[in-house]
Amino acid sequence: MKPPIGRDTRLCMSLAARPGNFGSRFHNRLYEILGLDYVYKAFTTHDLAGAVGGIRALGIRGCAVSMPFKEAVIPMLDALDPSARAIDSVNTVVNDDGVLTGFNTDYTAVRLLLASHDVDPAMPFLLRGSGGMAKAVATALHDAGFADGTIVARNEAAGRALAEVHGYGWTAEADAAGAPLLVNVTPLGMAGADAGALAFDAAAIARCRVAFDVVALPAETPFLAAARAAGKRVVTGAEVATLQALEQFVLYTGVRPDPSVVEAAAAFARG
Amino acid sequence: MKPPIGRDTRLCMSLAARPGNFGSRFHNRLYEILGLDYVYKAFTTHDLAGAVGGIRALGIRGCAVSMPFKEAVIPMLDALDPSARAIDSVNTVVNDDGVLTGFNTDYTAVRLLLASHDVDPAMPFLLRGSGGMAKAVATALHDAGFADGTIVARNEAAGRALAEVHGYGWTAEADAAGAPLLVNVTPLGMAGADAGALAFDAAAIARCRVAFDVVALPAETPFLAAARAAGKRVVTGAEVATLQALEQFVLYTGVRPDPSVVEAAAAFARG
Repeated sequence: MKPPIGRDTRLCMSLAARPGNFGSRFHNRLYEILGLDYVYKAFTTHDLAGAVGGIRALGIRGCAVSMPFKEAVIPMLDALDPSARAIDSVNTVVNDDGVLTGFNTDYTAVRLLLASHDVDPAMPFLLRGSGGMAKAVATALHDAGFADGTIVARNEAAGRALAEVHGYGWTAEADAAGAPLLVNVTPLGMAGADAGALAFDAAAIARCRVAFDVVALPAETPFLAAARAAGKRVVTGAEVATLQALEQFVLYTGVRPDPSVVEAAAAFARG
Repeated sequence: MKPPIGRDTRLCMSLAARPGNFGSRFHNRLYEILGLDYVYKAFTTHDLAGAVGGIRALGIRGCAVSMPFKEAVIPMLDALDPSARAIDSVNTVVNDDGVLTGFNTDYTAVRLLLASHDVDPAMPFLLRGSGGMAKAVATALHDAGFADGTIVARNEAAGRALAEVHGYGWTAEADAAGAPLLVNVTPLGMAGADAGALAFDAAAIARCRVAFDVVALPAETPFLAAARAAGKRVVTGAEVATLQALEQFVLYTGVRPDPSVVEAAAAFARG
């Protein structure tokens, strides 16, 4: 039984230009199920420094950081966890009695999913995308031992820059040859304008072994639907979203809930 | 039915050196009963400026301000309501799209209680106390038309200063003569070290017509118990606490709940 909110309740929060509701629903549901004296609330801000000052002054326990604050927040923190240092991007701030440490649980989640899905690091991959999340995924692949990869990005400067950090190749457009591991880190297939778009072409999907999409909404993008229909192994953006939020939850509370509890909270949060 | 906490939920809060739980319980209970998309949480801080900056940066809707921040917060605000300006003391901050206005709902509550209990402004009074709350009560009495009053305070400098603002008298110790209206604004009778203390002596209580105690815990102080036993009209600190919190609630939400709902929430909050 969760106690009523009061002076001892810890607040966790998120900061995003356009906040969603997944985090609030996921964390609050877990607090409720587990009887933890926490409350979670999504915020937006036009004043990142003021918001981080508020986290310090009010002793807010943790804060998820989304676009466009993931890099800007770094100079305001006291320390960076290796997960964030590797990609110069913070999606999670943990406040330990006034010491603010930045983490990147997107990176952590991708590492964990590559391992739990037994994705063989010997597989060559194509990674489509060159934004902040592409940086997290490419670095996770690199750190997991994937040595043979190609960044697919129409933005040549960003694509080449990301590729060169890890010794990967770059190409503007994927061809039908594809690769055993296809990873989408663009909005292609996301609910909205790009909902119908296929992140990789049908021939490449037919040839791959593993399809990994970071798009979380919908959970089944056209890319993943095509891969699943062709009997391929898939790793979904919904898994990334849930796992990165779970890792935040563990950092904030020190509690790692049972997988069944996590799945129940994630289903509630998506619903 | 209150919606789950999410991006649209408004946060209200309190700042105190030693936060209590009455506010969190009272406001959250009212949100629940009335189905309002708000959440309330008590905080403490060692950095008032950072906390107020956080209120601005995060768009926190309102903040109750307790000791020792009631005067220090004033230069950080954009405007003062007359309730706060009259006594240079803020117990409530309202954030209207980044414009922070300071109010004093203790003052407002005392004014409302003097009126609702039909306390006749022609009555001479003794007010015991010279701290911040005594200032609010003395000013409320003055503004309600009470012209004949005496401040009772062992601290001569503070007592004389408060008395002189409003043209009242000062005395170090009340005598048995008393006055028709006796007002206690000291910790005498409060749960803790002073729990057994009688704010006015028995002879003065026997002679008065109205006994007003600002101590909220316990709701029935020795002073009020003695006055009630002698058949006097009483105004309790619990009434002040509930009414000042209700006025904050109205400022934050724009909703004035039915008295029965307020009483239910106050009973829950005290319980």
